Amino acid sequence: MQLRFAILGAGRIGQVHARAVAGTPGAKLVAIADPVAKAAESVQAAYGCDIRSIDAIVASADVDAVVICTPTDTHADLIERFTKAGKAVFCEKPVDLSLARVKACLTAVAANKGTVMVGFNRRFDPDFMGVKAAIDDGTIGTVEMVTITSRDPGAPPADYITRSGGIFRDMTIHDFDMARWLLGEEVETVQAAASVLTDKAIGELGDFDSVNVILRTATGKQAIITNTRRATYGYDQRIEVLGSKGMVYAENQGENRVVVADKSGFRSAPLLNFFMTRYIAAYANEIAAFVDAVNSGKDTPTTTHDGLMALALAEAALKSVAEGRTVKLAEVL
Amino acid sequence: MQLRFAILGAGRIGQVHARAVAGTPGAKLVAIADPVAKAAESVQAAYGCDIRSIDAIVASADVDAVVICTPTDTHADLIERFTKAGKAVFCEKPVDLSLARVKACLTAVAANKGTVMVGFNRRFDPDFMGVKAAIDDGTIGTVEMVTITSRDPGAPPADYITRSGGIFRDMTIHDFDMARWLLGEEVETVQAAASVLTDKAIGELGDFDSVNVILRTATGKQAIITNTRRATYGYDQRIEVLGSKGMVYAENQGENRVVVADKSGFRSAPLLNFFMTRYIAAYANEIAAFVDAVNSGKDTPTTTHDGLMALALAEAALKSVAEGRTVKLAEVL
Amino acid sequence: MQLRFAILGAGRIGQVHARAVAGTPGAKLVAIADPVAKAAESVQAAYGCDIRSIDAIVASADVDAVVICTPTDTHADLIERFTKAGKAVFCEKPVDLSLARVKACLTAVAANKGTVMVGFNRRFDPDFMGVKAAIDDGTIGTVEMVTITSRDPGAPPADYITRSGGIFRDMTIHDFDMARWLLGEEVETVQAAASVLTDKAIGELGDFDSVNVILRTATGKQAIITNTRRATYGYDQRIEVLGSKGMVYAENQGENRVVVADKSGFRSAPLLNFFMTRYIAAYANEIAAFVDAVNSGKDTPTTTHDGLMALALAEAALKSVAEGRTVKLAEVL
Amino acid sequence: MQLRFAILGAGRIGQVHARAVAGTPGAKLVAIADPVAKAAESVQAAYGCDIRSIDAIVASADVDAVVICTPTDTHADLIERFTKAGKAVFCEKPVDLSLARVKACLTAVAANKGTVMVGFNRRFDPDFMGVKAAIDDGTIGTVEMVTITSRDPGAPPADYITRSGGIFRDMTIHDFDMARWLLGEEVETVQAAASVLTDKAIGELGDFDSVNVILRTATGKQAIITNTRRATYGYDQRIEVLGSKGMVYAENQGENRVVVADKSGFRSAPLLNFFMTRYIAAYANEIAAFVDAVNSGKDTPTTTHDGLMALALAEAALKSVAEGRTVKLAEVL
Repeated sequence: MQLRFAILGAGRIGQVHARAVAGTPGAKLVAIADPVAKAAESVQAAYGCDIRSIDAIVASADVDAVVICTPTDTHADLIERFTKAGKAVFCEKPVDLSLARVKACLTAVAANKGTVMVGFNRRFDPDFMGVKAAIDDGTIGTVEMVTITSRDPGAPPADYITRSGGIFRDMTIHDFDMARWLLGEEVETVQAAASVLTDKAIGELGDFDSVNVILRTATGKQAIITNTRRATYGYDQRIEVLGSKGMVYAENQGENRVVVADKSGFRSAPLLNFFMTRYIAAYANEIAAFVDAVNSGKDTPTTTHDGLMALALAEAALKSVAEGRTVKLAEVL
Repeated sequence: MQLRFAILGAGRIGQVHARAVAGTPGAKLVAIADPVAKAAESVQAAYGCDIRSIDAIVASADVDAVVICTPTDTHADLIERFTKAGKAVFCEKPVDLSLARVKACLTAVAANKGTVMVGFNRRFDPDFMGVKAAIDDGTIGTVEMVTITSRDPGAPPADYITRSGGIFRDMTIHDFDMARWLLGEEVETVQAAASVLTDKAIGELGDFDSVNVILRTATGKQAIITNTRRATYGYDQRIEVLGSKGMVYAENQGENRVVVADKSGFRSAPLLNFFMTRYIAAYANEIAAFVDAVNSGKDTPTTTHDGLMALALAEAALKSVAEGRTVKLAEVL
Repeated sequence: MQLRFAILGAGRIGQVHARAVAGTPGAKLVAIADPVAKAAESVQAAYGCDIRSIDAIVASADVDAVVICTPTDTHADLIERFTKAGKAVFCEKPVDLSLARVKACLTAVAANKGTVMVGFNRRFDPDFMGVKAAIDDGTIGTVEMVTITSRDPGAPPADYITRSGGIFRDMTIHDFDMARWLLGEEVETVQAAASVLTDKAIGELGDFDSVNVILRTATGKQAIITNTRRATYGYDQRIEVLGSKGMVYAENQGENRVVVADKSGFRSAPLLNFFMTRYIAAYANEIAAFVDAVNSGKDTPTTTHDGLMALALAEAALKSVAEGRTVKLAEVL
Repeated sequence: MQLRFAILGAGRIGQVHARAVAGTPGAKLVAIADPVAKAAESVQAAYGCDIRSIDAIVASADVDAVVICTPTDTHADLIERFTKAGKAVFCEKPVDLSLARVKACLTAVAANKGTVMVGFNRRFDPDFMGVKAAIDDGTIGTVEMVTITSRDPGAPPADYITRSGGIFRDMTIHDFDMARWLLGEEVETVQAAASVLTDKAIGELGDFDSVNVILRTATGKQAIITNTRRATYGYDQRIEVLGSKGMVYAENQGENRVVVADKSGFRSAPLLNFFMTRYIAAYANEIAAFVDAVNSGKDTPTTTHDGLMALALAEAALKSVAEGRTVKLAEVL
């Protein structure tokens, strides 16, 4: 029996999910919704699904699940509406930029007995899953230090930055989720440093482009996160975990595996430059995991609670920068 | 306008091509043919195409092109029949195990003014295309030495070996094609050494499992090919080209990019273990190239002539082993 | 004309320097001093130098320069005494564990017009010099982020920890110096997190074994330092610098370059396990640089001021941990 | 008790050995001989040894061992003379360019009950020793295929080529020795291909600059050797051994471990460019092994027999090229 999907939003990430749904055994793309007709039509053309309004999808008996890829400020409302309508929900992060709104949404979801998965795609990257497996199977012993290096090739457009909630809520939020996942414990304290180094315009918007964050759990485990908005050599995505018995890490992905050697030395390609190329397998895996959870009735592997905690870490990081001190996560939750 | 395909043969490689055709923009899978109903039905189920007999496909007005994935001894006949019927043909290598039969087939294809592409998939691997590009754009200067290491994870079943024509015609044939492609000149002489080292049963079938071949062109360029039927660490596929200005090579592909380090050292995954996984992109690219050639009327990037030349090199290698001497390619052509 | 050396202290690091002096063109090892006769005799046996008391060396007309390898609490006194005696001084770090004492020593050295070089050996590692060169020659543009990973294979003995001033003053101090050197600007603020994860005994001594530090300059450049006392896979020494145009890093050094591949994957050796093996070239280079500076009258490449600044950063890190806040370096200087 | 050495020949390789002897515990450099006064004096200046004539060294009671670094055509005579005089002999390869002369020399050495070690330095490279260890300890199972890639950065001067006996006797000879050592069996047949690709002048001297050789033992094990006189990216020295259980190889050595990444990709240094830099540890290790063998009375790890066999393989390779056939080693021995 196939899980029948509608996708809300036919923008860049909506198209990623449309492809993932279409290519997932056990999933079927039934409908796409987007106020921009052209965007919706391109998904229809590619996958042969219906175009419907969001209202129509709420009422569609032939839709079991939705993927929410609409603007951030609509996420919480749509989650509430679709869980109430009895649809399983996959929502792109973040649930909302306001912690209070996220909490209210969680309450509503609980009341609706809804199934909601938040799209922390990196947990589903095959290499990062391998890192997690080396933790879970005891290969590296007890986790002590998590090191996450996450650098974008270039900054997003200014109008995205103003709507995104800033670097901690938009970019570091992925790393906060990875840190929680890999540490295996909740974070107790947050220390963050932030700078504007790549583009003054980012600073003028009140945001930063270069940040480092130290997270510490109650037992003393630590994670360090390094972010910048500009890495000329590509989309730099590294994870390393030190444990009592050893270390595990995942190597970056270059554009290809070709090496040229001459009198100037050895040269290889830059890193894959785009999140959709780099995480293509992760996007497919997360939809498959969602389908599996809905069909089996098991918990989704990522939840709205994960969305809440990652957002809270972003709040704490901002507070640490603003107040020049180590911030307890409990202060912002 | 889409190119409408039928696939002849629903075995392992037929299924690879069915997936490639189904996923190629501008291509449409119309029909599958296989005497084994179950095999044909599984392709039908996966891609929603018709099941037809070969005879019916010859007569189908809604089929523009066929992919021949039937047993080797049927290839030449089918090529002749389908080119006569005006269909474009993509045929798995080899065209035939007999050089004389291949030559006759080429004559027939020419008489039919047929379009035939032979499936030397490795030329379409993105990394090997990068190696070729570094030759073609002058990066490494004039080619001098080509080094091809090609090792299978394990030997095929005995009955495959008896039908395949032996290691040179079945396994090295890919490397002969790569060598010709990368040398950019025809081979003049062949020297080969062959041993049975991994399994006596292979020797009892009259075949070898471990071979090295040196190819030399008239201008003195050389290629060295190393093959074995058993590499415990996976499917080892390496290409390196030395030129007057530098060297270019493609690194192997591991199962993942995870590294574990502990007191015993650093460990990473074995190589991808299966040709269909390793060359998944190559199979897709070669079908796309075929579609492009048929639609544009340009020559196919690999031809029956390429199939002939690779087979002739295999003949020459066998002769070199048997007679303990350097064999001129002209002797067998 | 050769620079004639005496070495004060024939312990482990004294022997490293004895070998470096003996092997440096333009340097000659004249005398060794150590209250432990056996230690002094082993240096004498190896290099054919005299054994003399420190008093005798102060008065030796045939000694131009001394290398101070005695216990930390004697460094400042010996620096003052030997600069007063007109000898050039190379002193192992740190100058003293007390910032006040270091400042007083600097004043005395200035009054003596003394030449003093502090042994921050890592600046002289060939690979790290290559990293610095890529900064200085503009290859990576303006420096933005420095990432230093420095992990010892195992903790030193408890009695060393009690005398060393703790992990920040004894281990991180090298990384503080590297960070200043690579940032090219003085640090303005320090944030540190510290844990006891590898051995409770270290905590009982009032020290930590696992720390992360973020340094930030006035212009917003940042450095992140990660230290632990236990890395099972060897002596992990990595440096990476992100700039506006690119990134540069130095790869770790394994015990050898041998790789074994089998069905379990690819395996290579652990990292070099000992600072004296890992930095053998650095120790030789720093003595050569000292000889060159003394002979040419140029400034030494590392100075007592560098020693002071690195120690101040350690103080600030301790204060950050103790007070749970971002500490300005100016507060402790 | 120290082994007292004289070195015959103060040229480039004589100086390498002088440094190795001077730095080897248990070895002492007593005298240097060279008809060129300036060359001998530079060794004397560096290591404080005597300058003596070869005649004087034969008669020197304070010399236990000699290192022969004189021109090739004097090697056999000097080996005979010094073994007769009761000195242990370390001789640079080759013993002679004539197989007959080498055989006569072996007879004389046997009659003199002499100790002679031939300088196949690569067997003493730490990484290649690691490869051998992985064979000897059973890690890779039974050896099946040995792959040796050995490429010089540039061709030697024309007058060296005319005296050296050509590429097989001068360059490949090292690889022939490595192949025998790693195969663990004697070679039965030789197939070689040779070209002139880098410099016509080499061809005009009757030599080749680009060769491939396949060696095969009676049990079917094979080795493949690839040589060229010009590799723009440095001194390429690779060894790989495939066995029944796995593969082992040694990675090349770059000039440093610095990597730069930017929009054009990742770049690292070319390979070490000079045999004396690349094999500095091997030269030290082989002298230490010689000292150990002489002192212990054990066989030297490399012998005049090894020299004979490597030269015979060169003869067979030349014959294979000339006659266009597979040559049995027995034909030339």
